[in-house]
Amino acid sequence: MNLNDLLNHTSEWLKGTGPHSDIVISSRIRLARNLDKLMFPQWANKKQGEEALQLIVGSFPKAPFLKQTSIFKLAEVDNIDKQFLVERHLMSLEHTQKTNHKAILIDQEEVLSFMINEEDHLRMQVMQSGFNLYEAWNIINQIDDSLAKELSYAFSAEWGYLTACPTNTGTGMRGSVMLHLPALVITRQIDRVLAAIAKLSFTTRGLYGEGTQAMGNFFQISNQVSLGHSEDEIIRNINGLIRQIIEQENQAREALLAKSKAPLEDRVHRSYGILKSAHIISSQETTELLSMVRLGCDMGMISNLDRRVINELFIITQPAHLQKMENKKLSQEERDVKRADIIRHKLV
Amino acid sequence: MNLNDLLNHTSEWLKGTGPHSDIVISSRIRLARNLDKLMFPQWANKKQGEEALQLIVGSFPKAPFLKQTSIFKLAEVDNIDKQFLVERHLMSLEHTQKTNHKAILIDQEEVLSFMINEEDHLRMQVMQSGFNLYEAWNIINQIDDSLAKELSYAFSAEWGYLTACPTNTGTGMRGSVMLHLPALVITRQIDRVLAAIAKLSFTTRGLYGEGTQAMGNFFQISNQVSLGHSEDEIIRNINGLIRQIIEQENQAREALLAKSKAPLEDRVHRSYGILKSAHIISSQETTELLSMVRLGCDMGMISNLDRRVINELFIITQPAHLQKMENKKLSQEERDVKRADIIRHKLV
Repeated sequence: MNLNDLLNHTSEWLKGTGPHSDIVISSRIRLARNLDKLMFPQWANKKQGEEALQLIVGSFPKAPFLKQTSIFKLAEVDNIDKQFLVERHLMSLEHTQKTNHKAILIDQEEVLSFMINEEDHLRMQVMQSGFNLYEAWNIINQIDDSLAKELSYAFSAEWGYLTACPTNTGTGMRGSVMLHLPALVITRQIDRVLAAIAKLSFTTRGLYGEGTQAMGNFFQISNQVSLGHSEDEIIRNINGLIRQIIEQENQAREALLAKSKAPLEDRVHRSYGILKSAHIISSQETTELLSMVRLGCDMGMISNLDRRVINELFIITQPAHLQKMENKKLSQEERDVKRADIIRHKLV
Repeated sequence: MNLNDLLNHTSEWLKGTGPHSDIVISSRIRLARNLDKLMFPQWANKKQGEEALQLIVGSFPKAPFLKQTSIFKLAEVDNIDKQFLVERHLMSLEHTQKTNHKAILIDQEEVLSFMINEEDHLRMQVMQSGFNLYEAWNIINQIDDSLAKELSYAFSAEWGYLTACPTNTGTGMRGSVMLHLPALVITRQIDRVLAAIAKLSFTTRGLYGEGTQAMGNFFQISNQVSLGHSEDEIIRNINGLIRQIIEQENQAREALLAKSKAPLEDRVHRSYGILKSAHIISSQETTELLSMVRLGCDMGMISNLDRRVINELFIITQPAHLQKMENKKLSQEERDVKRADIIRHKLV
């Protein structure tokens, strides 16, 4: 597999299918694992880093789901491709830095992405479209069970899986759900909802991962605590919370339809109209307008537009994607023009 | 002829044809005439008002160009129709008030519109599409010569034609040209141009006539002085001025193309996109966006859109037009919705 192949391909998590896919973009489970007897990547010397990489890659062939995957050494990946992988939510920004012994495993469907020698020796991620944490868990759990037979994990009977950062110790698990909550934002209830989420020990991030602002009404919600609960409990807790948020977003959408249908339709169609006609557009405006178009699709105000096209546009209008498509480095001004071109062609 | 017939018909001056029609919307000549021995309308009693009306209407049958015309008594025209006539530039706002003995003559093509018992006994107007004052003058002059044989005009050998307001005394003539000057506005040269026009004793008004602001980059320029020059001199002076303004607008358009083509294209296409998709739109936003779309057509950025459609949209999106089309009184909110509907359907 070549990274360029991903350009013309829809990631599993962008398909816009799966349960509650009008509100839930995607579900993700991540497990952090480390090898005992080897220093955590940040402290490891060259030899240990290489050894961890070899051991982990060597454990993959026997694991289920990993047949159609490719492994890339980050030191051999150019900067735009690294940013491209970050933009596709396949790896962290941190994984693009100090790339010695770092590698990434991905599959053609972009369901799986495993980072080797990021903060922990192994960070496994499984993504699913829609509200589907259990399916993600089912896949990642089988892989983890298989790898555990090959690798000697750093594990404490008292603390569970040991990790570089204590917040991940225990299950090493993080479950995340990406939600699109435009009606809660428009009706100004979102602050109340986010405050409640924070009190329940969940974390909220933006569309583009850790450290990013919520933009275009997207909110990624994940568990903050990995210790003291079983994996099933963690997933059950997240699911319970997400179900409540979905319910509140649905109520807010109904309230909008009842009270402000005409202004909402106007805003949705104007957003669609601008996206179909702009010749220069910033990343932020794109995200905001796409959010309104997605809401319009989900509420039946726009027909004949596949939700997958909208989901993809969020991803392919990012800087590295634009530069890969154009096959050269682009200034911000050039990207704003290229972005508008791509959007117009996709929305014709 | 019925006033409703005009709804589905393009006025001559909106056809978007004629010389320099990329910049000059229309040319208009107006003559003010009064009958001697009868008080000016404002001072006339009932009997005199009626007598002036009868005399003037009685003079029409022998005049050229007046065969296919209709006369409406303003007292018999309802309020929406009166406003409708104002919106079509066929009569003044003043002519909608105190309607006793007031009448209007119009033709199907809306080239001619004669107000009887407005400020003066007779106000004759001839409109042409594009930059074409001489053709308007040619028509109105023949009519005036014919009427002069039937009517006894108030005329002084020293002062010329006598009028209710001294600013019209002399020739009684006003020549006006409606210009679309978006590039001078965008490049911020318009204030300098308007200051020069004022110094030369010309008046500038907006798209919607006396007392209106310039909106959507439309400027109606007319002579301020009617006395001391022949009709030919007045037209020659206006024409000379207009030719200079056209030249400056053209230079500003070329400068925009050379320096800011991409942002201009973006603005033009966004304006078009919003007009094609909005579900609620104000009159002011409509005018501003249509102005950009017209510029885009004139500069070849938008193809397959007839300039006539844009010109018409400026007119038919006005309040009385919307209400006539809907055949009922509409609130401002209802008009904003109806306006957006009409625009979307016309621009499909």
